[in-house]
Amino acid sequence: MIDIRVGIIGLGSVGQGVVQIINDNISLIEKKTNTKISIIGVSGKNKNKHRDVQIDRYQWYDDPISLAGNENADIIIELIGGEDGVAFEVVESAIKAGKHVITANKALLAKNGNYLFELAEKIGVKLLFEAAIAGTIPIIKTLKESVASNTISAIYGILNGTCNYILTSMEKGGISFESALKRAQELGFAESDPTFDIEGYDAAHKLSILSSICFGQKINFDQVKIEGIKSIELDDIRAASDYGYVIRLLGIAKRNEDDHISQVVRPSLLSKESDLSGVEWEKNAISIRGNYFNELLLSGPGAGRLPTASAVMGDLFDIINNTKYPSLGMPLKALSNSSKDGNIEENRFYLRLLLPDVSGTMASITNTMAKNGISIDDITQRISKKMKDKNLVPITIITSMTNYESINKAVEDINKNNYSSASPNIITIEN
Amino acid sequence: MIDIRVGIIGLGSVGQGVVQIINDNISLIEKKTNTKISIIGVSGKNKNKHRDVQIDRYQWYDDPISLAGNENADIIIELIGGEDGVAFEVVESAIKAGKHVITANKALLAKNGNYLFELAEKIGVKLLFEAAIAGTIPIIKTLKESVASNTISAIYGILNGTCNYILTSMEKGGISFESALKRAQELGFAESDPTFDIEGYDAAHKLSILSSICFGQKINFDQVKIEGIKSIELDDIRAASDYGYVIRLLGIAKRNEDDHISQVVRPSLLSKESDLSGVEWEKNAISIRGNYFNELLLSGPGAGRLPTASAVMGDLFDIINNTKYPSLGMPLKALSNSSKDGNIEENRFYLRLLLPDVSGTMASITNTMAKNGISIDDITQRISKKMKDKNLVPITIITSMTNYESINKAVEDINKNNYSSASPNIITIEN
Repeated sequence: MIDIRVGIIGLGSVGQGVVQIINDNISLIEKKTNTKISIIGVSGKNKNKHRDVQIDRYQWYDDPISLAGNENADIIIELIGGEDGVAFEVVESAIKAGKHVITANKALLAKNGNYLFELAEKIGVKLLFEAAIAGTIPIIKTLKESVASNTISAIYGILNGTCNYILTSMEKGGISFESALKRAQELGFAESDPTFDIEGYDAAHKLSILSSICFGQKINFDQVKIEGIKSIELDDIRAASDYGYVIRLLGIAKRNEDDHISQVVRPSLLSKESDLSGVEWEKNAISIRGNYFNELLLSGPGAGRLPTASAVMGDLFDIINNTKYPSLGMPLKALSNSSKDGNIEENRFYLRLLLPDVSGTMASITNTMAKNGISIDDITQRISKKMKDKNLVPITIITSMTNYESINKAVEDINKNNYSSASPNIITIEN
Repeated sequence: MIDIRVGIIGLGSVGQGVVQIINDNISLIEKKTNTKISIIGVSGKNKNKHRDVQIDRYQWYDDPISLAGNENADIIIELIGGEDGVAFEVVESAIKAGKHVITANKALLAKNGNYLFELAEKIGVKLLFEAAIAGTIPIIKTLKESVASNTISAIYGILNGTCNYILTSMEKGGISFESALKRAQELGFAESDPTFDIEGYDAAHKLSILSSICFGQKINFDQVKIEGIKSIELDDIRAASDYGYVIRLLGIAKRNEDDHISQVVRPSLLSKESDLSGVEWEKNAISIRGNYFNELLLSGPGAGRLPTASAVMGDLFDIINNTKYPSLGMPLKALSNSSKDGNIEENRFYLRLLLPDVSGTMASITNTMAKNGISIDDITQRISKKMKDKNLVPITIITSMTNYESINKAVEDINKNNYSSASPNIITIEN
């Protein structure tokens, strides 16, 4: 029996989950790996805080850095979170001390991944992170290993459970964004400060890491165009449904015709017939398109104590089984720099405008759209008691293929001509 | 740059796909692995047959066994198929000669896997088989590696693209089983002799291998209860739809309350709300339930030249990266023998009976069901012009929880009392 000695730093929900799995399933793990896993130390913010798992039997470290560099540890599991600060120091010092590192920290890798992966490669240790993206879903392993022979053309992901929970609540419950957010907070699917999730940053962190593996480029979080879900109203979800769509926050990375890799996080209209449209509530899902297969779809729990800890354990199994895959699927020196902005992307769009309830409005809009070179597939005047009182009428439009710049120009012109009272909601339609 | 020398035996669709991928993506593969893959020999039934890929540049072997044991080969890829015969000899002799082996042959592994995996383990070579089950879907790697820390409770799979294509054709096109089969054959989704697929054997081969990995037991194909889709009629699909279900051929392996592992392949009624019900046409999908996550669903192309070859390439990447995972997820000596039959399984059932169109039939059926301890959730008399001419009426029933034995007993009694003209269709409802 081989011994593997693990230090766990960060004893929040996922950290406790890892302790629990190692304890509960120790005999299964030993049977599968012929390896005895010992937790040689733990570190957290507060030793005496109530926790759901017993940690008395483990050596406690007030100073996480001293555990990270401890000579008795073979592997450090970092579950603190945060794009720098203590988490960064822990990972950096563990690598420098020659330990393998497992982390669930997407913010850290989105910001400092290029440096940390290079450091790990130089020192010859593994830095694994399956738990950082989409919980139990084995997306990192699938991309790096299973479909490694493919040229990936695109990846579409529902990467943030909080946003998906809110959008599904609005859709199924007919409630407002604010009510849905409140409910998600009450049930533990949203943080008390939800900014990071609902503004799309969390999904963008994950997307930047996925893009790197899919397309063989360095991680470049700054190039992700990010739009959150705060502006989505119930009226949008209802109108989308009338047109046969649902609204989901998608992370999309794709290789465009000019070989530019675009990375974007944005609310999107998805056909109710599409696979991703069926991904509801807090679930995550990722669709991969490769040149040797049409579509591979993985879906499952994207967060939560044990689903995420299960992914951490998968990385532990990988270290025990000594897999030699490079951290991002290819040696770092082979990764390209991501290219600057490419061609302008063409899409169909959904628009919702609030316009004065006077005759001629529809004609004026269609004229303005035409003048800006935009064909309209559908234009519908909606009924809204609330807006009628204000003498306003909501109008929704589905366009043919066009680009965001043309849409913006058209909306500007419409506002000039029609004195719109609010900025319109413009949402991309994905095919 | 490291050299890896590969022999490819079997140059049908998948074999040609592997040759194509190695050629087309050679520079991507070299960049990712720092390894040069050379095809040092190929073998197939007929050298001069027309093929979609050029094989003139490779050394041809009339005798596959001499390629399998060739001193210049590091890895043998077996893509002949068949549960024994040449495929068996190729794999056995390659292993004995110290080569790693990659195969897509589920029939071979279902029948001879225990012997071949033991041989490979003894000699210290890898025997990998991701392509044998569900094409591109990385189910083997996910089970063996990603969710390895979990105790798996159940796996539900749509494992045969031919059957799924036929059932979907019937459902969407409103056509008979025979027409759907013919169409599938014309489009290349069914073999000219489809027996193996439509009678459930192919799905059962795959299920027996999955069960072994999920539950840590030796492969035991003989314990799989197998029922195919030949008896499914369009009327069943329509009635199922009325009740809110679709019909799919499922492979189900689960750990029951008495710890017995049941393995069964059978047509099943699935709620239209379930994830697997949305898996249509030739697609495959697998749902895994673990103790640390609720459900993980993987879906994608389950067959086809390049999707399957892509999975073969994944195994090649694994050999290059020297992963040490045991073939079936744990050392073979740790695998248990599968247990004998366990408790009787309880399910809800769908029944369709053809009974004489006389008054009192419904009352007689409900009485007979009650006498056999079966509660009825729904009983519906259907309209059928064709049957009316024969003075028969189709009746469909949805039962509460019961078991197959009770159902069979009740049907026997119904037939005795009501002179039914045909054996009824009985289909399990999955929750």
